[in-house]
Amino acid sequence: MRSNLKLARLFSTSCLRQVADKSKYVPTSGTYPQGFKVGGYKSGVKKNGNLDLAILKSEIPNTTAAAVFTTNKFKAAPVIVSSKILEKKKGKDVNSIVINSGCANAVTGEGGLKDANATVDLVDTLVGNKNGQSTLVMSTGVIGQRLQMDKISSSLPKLIQQELGDDHEHWLNCAKAICTTDTFPKLVSKKFEINGIEYKLAGLAKGAGMICPNMATLLGFFVTDAPVEPFTLKKILKYATDRSFNCISVDGDMSTNDTISALANGAAGGEVINEQSPHFKQLQDEIVSFAQQLAQLVVRDGEGATKFVTVRVEDALTYEDAHKVAKSISNSPLVKTALYGKDANWGRILCATGYADVEVEPTKTNVSFIPTDGTKELKLLVNGEPELVDEERASEILEHENLEILVSLGTGGGQSCDFWTCDLSHEYVSINGDYRS
Amino acid sequence: MRSNLKLARLFSTSCLRQVADKSKYVPTSGTYPQGFKVGGYKSGVKKNGNLDLAILKSEIPNTTAAAVFTTNKFKAAPVIVSSKILEKKKGKDVNSIVINSGCANAVTGEGGLKDANATVDLVDTLVGNKNGQSTLVMSTGVIGQRLQMDKISSSLPKLIQQELGDDHEHWLNCAKAICTTDTFPKLVSKKFEINGIEYKLAGLAKGAGMICPNMATLLGFFVTDAPVEPFTLKKILKYATDRSFNCISVDGDMSTNDTISALANGAAGGEVINEQSPHFKQLQDEIVSFAQQLAQLVVRDGEGATKFVTVRVEDALTYEDAHKVAKSISNSPLVKTALYGKDANWGRILCATGYADVEVEPTKTNVSFIPTDGTKELKLLVNGEPELVDEERASEILEHENLEILVSLGTGGGQSCDFWTCDLSHEYVSINGDYRS
Repeated sequence: MRSNLKLARLFSTSCLRQVADKSKYVPTSGTYPQGFKVGGYKSGVKKNGNLDLAILKSEIPNTTAAAVFTTNKFKAAPVIVSSKILEKKKGKDVNSIVINSGCANAVTGEGGLKDANATVDLVDTLVGNKNGQSTLVMSTGVIGQRLQMDKISSSLPKLIQQELGDDHEHWLNCAKAICTTDTFPKLVSKKFEINGIEYKLAGLAKGAGMICPNMATLLGFFVTDAPVEPFTLKKILKYATDRSFNCISVDGDMSTNDTISALANGAAGGEVINEQSPHFKQLQDEIVSFAQQLAQLVVRDGEGATKFVTVRVEDALTYEDAHKVAKSISNSPLVKTALYGKDANWGRILCATGYADVEVEPTKTNVSFIPTDGTKELKLLVNGEPELVDEERASEILEHENLEILVSLGTGGGQSCDFWTCDLSHEYVSINGDYRS
Repeated sequence: MRSNLKLARLFSTSCLRQVADKSKYVPTSGTYPQGFKVGGYKSGVKKNGNLDLAILKSEIPNTTAAAVFTTNKFKAAPVIVSSKILEKKKGKDVNSIVINSGCANAVTGEGGLKDANATVDLVDTLVGNKNGQSTLVMSTGVIGQRLQMDKISSSLPKLIQQELGDDHEHWLNCAKAICTTDTFPKLVSKKFEINGIEYKLAGLAKGAGMICPNMATLLGFFVTDAPVEPFTLKKILKYATDRSFNCISVDGDMSTNDTISALANGAAGGEVINEQSPHFKQLQDEIVSFAQQLAQLVVRDGEGATKFVTVRVEDALTYEDAHKVAKSISNSPLVKTALYGKDANWGRILCATGYADVEVEPTKTNVSFIPTDGTKELKLLVNGEPELVDEERASEILEHENLEILVSLGTGGGQSCDFWTCDLSHEYVSINGDYRS
């Protein structure tokens, strides 16, 4: 058995790991928010010597911050520490974020909390935050190991004094430094205009890559130079996360460290945006579509993924119902292996729809594949009756990296949800079945 | 990619598919309940020409029957028809069960219901049931295809008139005829004594083997010659199913056809057992442990499984909480791939515990591996603090086919649940990623 497994790993490493060139998802330039300095550094916590320490720092005092955290009962130390800081400061005057990769500082008891607090305090001192703890801390990497504080402590001054900046390379380094088993850094940026003022938005994320042994963390960051009231930023972040990072699935596991956070420093000027502002909805829409773009990159980099699939559920009674069905389909190992096998297996899609435990009208349910090249949809199930599937056409559609699965529940409720998932491949098993080493 | 996939399949077929010899789980003799005739027949619905039509028939009129059905919203025709028959007859005078494999008769509309009813009517006529529909019908196999009624209709007389009997071979044929992609037939039997009378219990099941394209059905059958009142049988069946078939996971998908049913014909004599009987609890315990034995065979035959893992969750606030955590661990792709890789990855177990969304006391949580050879347990997490794991000892334990994972939630509630699962292997992906063919 051992030798079979070794052979399997050898096989998958040599044959499958290199299939998709994902460098096209890494930007070569960007347009970044004013008043932020960012960067990455090699602290040595990562055994392979890659960038593993990152800082996002606002140059503007009194920056607004918000975050949403994992609901896992075993919250990592940085999650506990960061949420306390945000609470204490009510989202105001939180000016920097420090992230280390290679060690999750999770299940590390009191010592872990001490390390997370010491990291915050050191960054606050180095960047000159003076009003109590004003830095968020995040970690991703191995669970159950203490942070090597000697390496963090000696690296932070060098990172902050020598490696921070605001050009594309700094942002890219920052994105690289938060990666663990990600195969590419996830960085996006854009401009938008509100009331005649140009604002910028930059985002970074790291994916659910989980080797060695538990780098099971999803981290996401948005920073903008728009001025946003703290409660409003929190509300927008929650709304956007629900429609982006909470709508993706690689394998359905939720980690001890998952955190999505946002900083808004107002450096670009203009009136502070709150829920009553006429431009509230526009800002929210900008951040939602941006968050979706970033979340989709995490799916693109799903472990072993060869497919990027949009699951669109329509005509549910409520958004929550649509989300539940889309999630059920997106998490089904049977659906995911069929996608990997390029099999137009609508029965599995229907099955996962049926056990999602929401209102469905079986005789009015429709299932289709929507090709992403603009060609005609392929109907698989119409009003609960199977179509005679043109298998050749199905194969054509399934050859593409991208696909949309459309399921209409026929309830008359009209609510819909988009969800993004990838396939389940031999490579996924190889990556996650590997011995820790 | 296509050629990689072919290679992957070739690889997995040649190297991995044959790893475990499961013939040891097939009995060579048995002790079967009185007053039942059973058998299997090759109707030709299965393309490979194997046994694909089965009958379980009580010789005693007025046999008691009960069943629990899938909660999937897309119920297959035989599920709808059988549940109506049971309801109409209030669990009395249901004397036979007919099962076909190779076609699930699911998502087949009005035509499918007609086929299921026609099958019931034909069996009733052939076996001499005279008081309205008195046969349960079950199907497993491809979704979205109509049953080949010509083959069923011409085979049923031959099966019923020539192939039914009560010796071991008949029972084994019956167990074989309900298989789809199962690698071995699942048949168990036992004797027990109540009030000085010897009763027998026989059980058959088919597993969650799901190739080609959707043989996603779990079917289970218990028949006994004990006399049981209908409502009591239903209650016991529900209780036993909750603690057996609802405590197993191969991949967490729930099919359109899942059905567990029971017949009790009272042929062995004695007083009819109801909830007030002094022996009610004993009968229930017998059936629970029997159902667990049968359900465990389904996990043993999980697609691509190389491991059989008991997940025991202790000290939860409620049984439901313990079940939720055990299920969360058992369904986690990360836990399952780690088991495949023989990786003592307690972080993933803890992570799946934490997102199960039940009351947990993180600082009192314990995780251990319990070897099945009687040697000492390996503690991985004690009171929320990671142990320094003896990796050599962990590897030793994980080399075995069998393993118990013990998680104690430390809530003081004292409730526990056993759950059974298998690993997630390359072979699983090969089986389910395969083109329909």
